[in-house]
Amino acid sequence: MATAAAASNAMGSVKPAAAQLPALILIRRVDASFAAALRRRFCVLDFFASGEPLPPLPSFLAAAAANGPRAAVVMGGGVARVDAAFLEAVPSLRCVVTTAAGVDSIDLHECARRGVAVANSGRVYSVDVADHAVGLLIDVLRRITASSRFVRRGLWPLQGDYPLGTKLGGKRIGIIGLGNIGSLIANRLEAFGCVIYYNSRMPKDSVSYRFFSSVHDLAAESDVLVVACALNKETRHIVNKDVLEALGKDGIIINVGRGANVDEPELVKALKEGRIAGAGLDVFENEPEVPAELLSMDNVVLTHHVAVLTSESRSDLRDHTIANLEAFFSGNPLLTPVLPQ
Amino acid sequence: MATAAAASNAMGSVKPAAAQLPALILIRRVDASFAAALRRRFCVLDFFASGEPLPPLPSFLAAAAANGPRAAVVMGGGVARVDAAFLEAVPSLRCVVTTAAGVDSIDLHECARRGVAVANSGRVYSVDVADHAVGLLIDVLRRITASSRFVRRGLWPLQGDYPLGTKLGGKRIGIIGLGNIGSLIANRLEAFGCVIYYNSRMPKDSVSYRFFSSVHDLAAESDVLVVACALNKETRHIVNKDVLEALGKDGIIINVGRGANVDEPELVKALKEGRIAGAGLDVFENEPEVPAELLSMDNVVLTHHVAVLTSESRSDLRDHTIANLEAFFSGNPLLTPVLPQ
Repeated sequence: MATAAAASNAMGSVKPAAAQLPALILIRRVDASFAAALRRRFCVLDFFASGEPLPPLPSFLAAAAANGPRAAVVMGGGVARVDAAFLEAVPSLRCVVTTAAGVDSIDLHECARRGVAVANSGRVYSVDVADHAVGLLIDVLRRITASSRFVRRGLWPLQGDYPLGTKLGGKRIGIIGLGNIGSLIANRLEAFGCVIYYNSRMPKDSVSYRFFSSVHDLAAESDVLVVACALNKETRHIVNKDVLEALGKDGIIINVGRGANVDEPELVKALKEGRIAGAGLDVFENEPEVPAELLSMDNVVLTHHVAVLTSESRSDLRDHTIANLEAFFSGNPLLTPVLPQ
Repeated sequence: MATAAAASNAMGSVKPAAAQLPALILIRRVDASFAAALRRRFCVLDFFASGEPLPPLPSFLAAAAANGPRAAVVMGGGVARVDAAFLEAVPSLRCVVTTAAGVDSIDLHECARRGVAVANSGRVYSVDVADHAVGLLIDVLRRITASSRFVRRGLWPLQGDYPLGTKLGGKRIGIIGLGNIGSLIANRLEAFGCVIYYNSRMPKDSVSYRFFSSVHDLAAESDVLVVACALNKETRHIVNKDVLEALGKDGIIINVGRGANVDEPELVKALKEGRIAGAGLDVFENEPEVPAELLSMDNVVLTHHVAVLTSESRSDLRDHTIANLEAFFSGNPLLTPVLPQ
């Protein structure tokens, strides 16, 4: 324990008394209320508390391992992939809680092999992401952001003609991934008089929406494609050149999944060449990089991976993450297991 | 009739054969398909066909009056108010069809006194306006247009911190005016888990939403005020300084009614001083002028009176306007009378 305390003190994050609390690796920047809530319960080995420049992850993990941490809190798509090397560096680890819904930055196979449980953020973000998706769609169809630019540039009194928007009602919305988020998007868009189609691994008995086993066929029958699926081997570039072609020149893409669900260079090409009509994108293949060609397009609405970001979801996330950790440390089932204990 | 034909020929809008058709005054720019549909049925006395610079309205009306037009098509808030002088200039007029939902630019009292029927656009725009209102609200809460600016300026890779958005679900939405548009907004926002309150002249038996007879009290109990009422003496500046005060510093204003429903200088002041949290505005008191202070505010979404503008509503409007005119000329009841024959 002397070594462990020294290591964590060296990281500037643990008061001596905290050494009595169970050790926890934290690889995510958290706000003050989240940090305080963690420190009340755990001896927090905080990667970001070690000061700038950040240490290399392997040396941080090696030092942290000396505390025998049994759990880690990580973020999705952030600084650290939870892979074989990560797990190897901290052999005491038995639980990883990600603050993301997606687990694409966690090697589930390695976790399973080593008996490491994994929990995600469950439905904490689902409502906000669904709302954001609908907001992006209305914005693209009704040109809200484009009109806002037009007004802010002072063009309204000068320019008579302005391209008409497109009605939302009656549009056929093809949702890729009818999980929590996809289902909430469907519910919302039904209230606008849209027709819902979907693609997922399996048809869902609980809904009457038309199911398409092929994303290509879904695109061919839809006015709008909404990407709301997880990112994995099967869904990487699930929207590719052929799918964009099938969607056609009046078609619109909304992406609130992961950037890599869409073949981004092909999307940019299709937009440039007018082979699809517009896009509303919250996620990108190489965040925070956004393809430069998109920045000047009037038919594209770009937000910077903020679909999950509300003050309400932030505090829900804090409570949910701590509830998962407390469940793990008290030997109860995780609230939102991706891999159960 | 020789005089009439000469007058309308002078306006460059009528072929000789068209003189057989009933005469119609048109004071609105229409697209080619709308113009063609009118010309097939009417001898169109087109204010905007007389070439630039436009003639003074009184001289146009005097020349048009010689044709004995019994109907006029006008737009809302446009070049011409249909007032006593207008009606006096064309004494043959018995029907005014506006392509707007609002009739604030028509003196209904004078029309009634002279036996002039008035029809409006009915529900042609209602769905699009409701969709736009929801789009504006999501945009303001979730900062979509603001985020789009952030991305387009290349700030994402440079700036870590960005203000969080606010969740839509659970918000108390106070709707001013629960007519066609207000009701559609309510239906849509219920699907997002919002709580609906409203103010209107009278409580509606058909809904279970909580009714407020005072807009001030509605504002005090709401997180968001949505202005969706007609503009008339009672609703001019219905959102005034006191109402903004009651709404409070976390409150948001959405206006898809008319600019003058809101005391615009007071709104600008409240936004500048942080006494309300944000606004989504499609209409303004002195369109196309927008208060300069608003143009630089990040918590304000501005569109240029486009809530009604979709290609679908444009063609619905054409069909609806012609159906009203045909009803009038064949002695049938108007489809959407504001003042019946």
